[in-house]
Amino acid sequence: LERGDDEEVQALAAPLHNADIADLIEQFAPQDRAALAAALGDQLDPEVLAEMDDEVREDLIDMLPPEQVAEVLGGLETDDAVAIVEDLDEADKQAVLRALEPDERAAIEEALGYPEESAGRLMQRDLIAVPQDWDVGRVIDYLRGAEPDALTDDFWEIYVVDARHHPIGTLRLSHLLRSPRTTPVAQIMEGEQTLVPVGMDQEEVALRFQKYGLISAAVVDASERLVGMITVDDILHIIQQEADEDIRRLSGAEEGGIHERTRDIVRQRLRWLVINLGTAVIASVVIGLFAGTIEQMVALAILMPIVASLGGNAATQTMTVTVRALATDELTSSNTRRTIIKEIRVAIINGLAIACLIGLGAALYFSMPLLGVVIAAAMLGNIFVAGLAGVLIPIALDRADVDPAISSSVFVTMTTDVMGFFMFLGLASIVLL
Amino acid sequence: LERGDDEEVQALAAPLHNADIADLIEQFAPQDRAALAAALGDQLDPEVLAEMDDEVREDLIDMLPPEQVAEVLGGLETDDAVAIVEDLDEADKQAVLRALEPDERAAIEEALGYPEESAGRLMQRDLIAVPQDWDVGRVIDYLRGAEPDALTDDFWEIYVVDARHHPIGTLRLSHLLRSPRTTPVAQIMEGEQTLVPVGMDQEEVALRFQKYGLISAAVVDASERLVGMITVDDILHIIQQEADEDIRRLSGAEEGGIHERTRDIVRQRLRWLVINLGTAVIASVVIGLFAGTIEQMVALAILMPIVASLGGNAATQTMTVTVRALATDELTSSNTRRTIIKEIRVAIINGLAIACLIGLGAALYFSMPLLGVVIAAAMLGNIFVAGLAGVLIPIALDRADVDPAISSSVFVTMTTDVMGFFMFLGLASIVLL
Repeated sequence: LERGDDEEVQALAAPLHNADIADLIEQFAPQDRAALAAALGDQLDPEVLAEMDDEVREDLIDMLPPEQVAEVLGGLETDDAVAIVEDLDEADKQAVLRALEPDERAAIEEALGYPEESAGRLMQRDLIAVPQDWDVGRVIDYLRGAEPDALTDDFWEIYVVDARHHPIGTLRLSHLLRSPRTTPVAQIMEGEQTLVPVGMDQEEVALRFQKYGLISAAVVDASERLVGMITVDDILHIIQQEADEDIRRLSGAEEGGIHERTRDIVRQRLRWLVINLGTAVIASVVIGLFAGTIEQMVALAILMPIVASLGGNAATQTMTVTVRALATDELTSSNTRRTIIKEIRVAIINGLAIACLIGLGAALYFSMPLLGVVIAAAMLGNIFVAGLAGVLIPIALDRADVDPAISSSVFVTMTTDVMGFFMFLGLASIVLL
Repeated sequence: LERGDDEEVQALAAPLHNADIADLIEQFAPQDRAALAAALGDQLDPEVLAEMDDEVREDLIDMLPPEQVAEVLGGLETDDAVAIVEDLDEADKQAVLRALEPDERAAIEEALGYPEESAGRLMQRDLIAVPQDWDVGRVIDYLRGAEPDALTDDFWEIYVVDARHHPIGTLRLSHLLRSPRTTPVAQIMEGEQTLVPVGMDQEEVALRFQKYGLISAAVVDASERLVGMITVDDILHIIQQEADEDIRRLSGAEEGGIHERTRDIVRQRLRWLVINLGTAVIASVVIGLFAGTIEQMVALAILMPIVASLGGNAATQTMTVTVRALATDELTSSNTRRTIIKEIRVAIINGLAIACLIGLGAALYFSMPLLGVVIAAAMLGNIFVAGLAGVLIPIALDRADVDPAISSSVFVTMTTDVMGFFMFLGLASIVLL
């Protein structure tokens, strides 16, 4: 099929949604994607590019001349165009911007002026705002009277503004439609509780949408004037993206999804492996301190990884819950103490249970009751340390304004490895020899 | 403040959004929450309960008589009421259902008849549907003419249905408002591409909303009749919830967030710790096979955890990316082979880099070039195994219809631990002794 027949390809793709065409292109091997895009011809709507995975889109755009990229951007809403331009490298970005129409260029450059991942980058500038003294009939006449292209069709709520263009309320279209023409808009609008400052981080914007069940939100500049609007469809992607980032960071895999280039994957993961090598060496140094003890009793070397592995496991459980609670603003200063106490209680109970199991097992297997006591004590201690480290380290990093998802794992597993080996081998050298 | 003065509490809470009041209650210690709820009195809107975290809400509802719960449910949309009722235990559920008005009771019981986490549980039954032969003016008159309570206000799109009540198109309110009264709705509606069957899993529903940027979706029964609607505000919570579930499951912490009861947390986490104990024992048995080798060269015991730790780390990186790509439908049968080959390439490059580092370090530190060669070879082998296991195990579990997020970690780390110890100690006993 892919060999030659463009018309066939276009006929097959015709009934598909833009998002499905984007998926289809992603499924192809990187070297075949350009050929497929070329075969699709005019069916390659600008929206298809907007729906594509970042890395796949970058590859595809790299192969197009700036003029063609500019033409594609012209067909998109500002927010989607910005999302594409911001990922280009500097030279390409300038070339593409130069090829754009002056007004589109100004809009995109203004958006690029806001910090990355801020509300300013996310917002679209096309929105409907009406003065507070209009009534329902006048709003409908205004919407109906305008030229088809003069107003956006992409809105779910209308903003009501005062004389200085400050948003004072939001009008749901359903309320507008259900009210008589003579009703003043001020009477059916909802008072504005959820203005988004233009510099707000996208993660926080997403949390607001989630918390208040918003469909759209007004974006205001420093002087509280209405400058743009963010709609919920963009937020759906951000929630997923932020959660995915946290998952990958916790595992040391960083940003990259499955479409990332091999070179980038290697670079990102190798960094964490090297850091992990450093912490593993520290743990080994601790073992080295007790080389003499191990030489005298090889059972210690056999049991040693169990203490570290379970400590690491218990720590990861606590850490993950803590990191996500911090990311979703559930863990605040007022419940920190309560959460820590709860984690300590969980750690003691689970530590006792696991300590009994492994202590009994080791004592019977090696026929050495004292060895059982030593590993049980070390295990209880390490699971306790794990619970404390799992909750305290992410909180400390968060207070120091470091993203706990990125760096917690390293510190937490180092703590449980080092403390686990130290307690187990240290106790053994005192009690058993 | 909390001591006595109800009026003061109510005055302070008056300007808050229902979601903020819910947050406020969550921030209090469990034993104080009922007192706060009582002090709030009438300000405790049914919506506040709907906004609350599951576990906090359960605790609060346990303290209320069934009649009062039924009254609260009567003030909610069907989907929110169902979300509350489905979490109650069987006896409470029956008591509450008995106390409900007959029509509300029927609606909730019908929803409960659908499987958990299905579209049927999520949907609301109040929606606006119009026949395909109406024009814009007639739709507006219909919306305006109905009694205030006869139609829901909570809609963003209108469904266009044929004579058999099959949805054939969706009408955005913005298009409705921007068209002249004489335009037939069939002309401005969008053809229906995204019907949701009533039994579809909520995770899949969320992926659809995300992919197509939907605001609402029509839910149809087995005979394709329109039976309900799902709106995007519910989807925002589900995306977050499903991602959180995956994160926690990957770490062995299971469902529970920070509001979960200590008893439940202990039960969930202990299960995984015991499973982890089992796999750690298997790894120890492998070490035990080489007890004689370790006795002769204690350096092996010192270096052993490094091989296992880095293998585990590399495996977790690959596994996390794979699990999320499966959960978001990015990894499909057509790119599985490509993904596996890419992961193998990454594993070989990273394995070589780490093997060189650790091999050189060990050779110099212990002044034993052959020990360096042994650990380098074992490390390369284990990172290769890690890459393979990290991508193959989740894919295999997914094909076997097991959620890869729940069980991948256990299998993957067991594989790298066992293989790491086996390769390192096995090679050492052949080469070094």
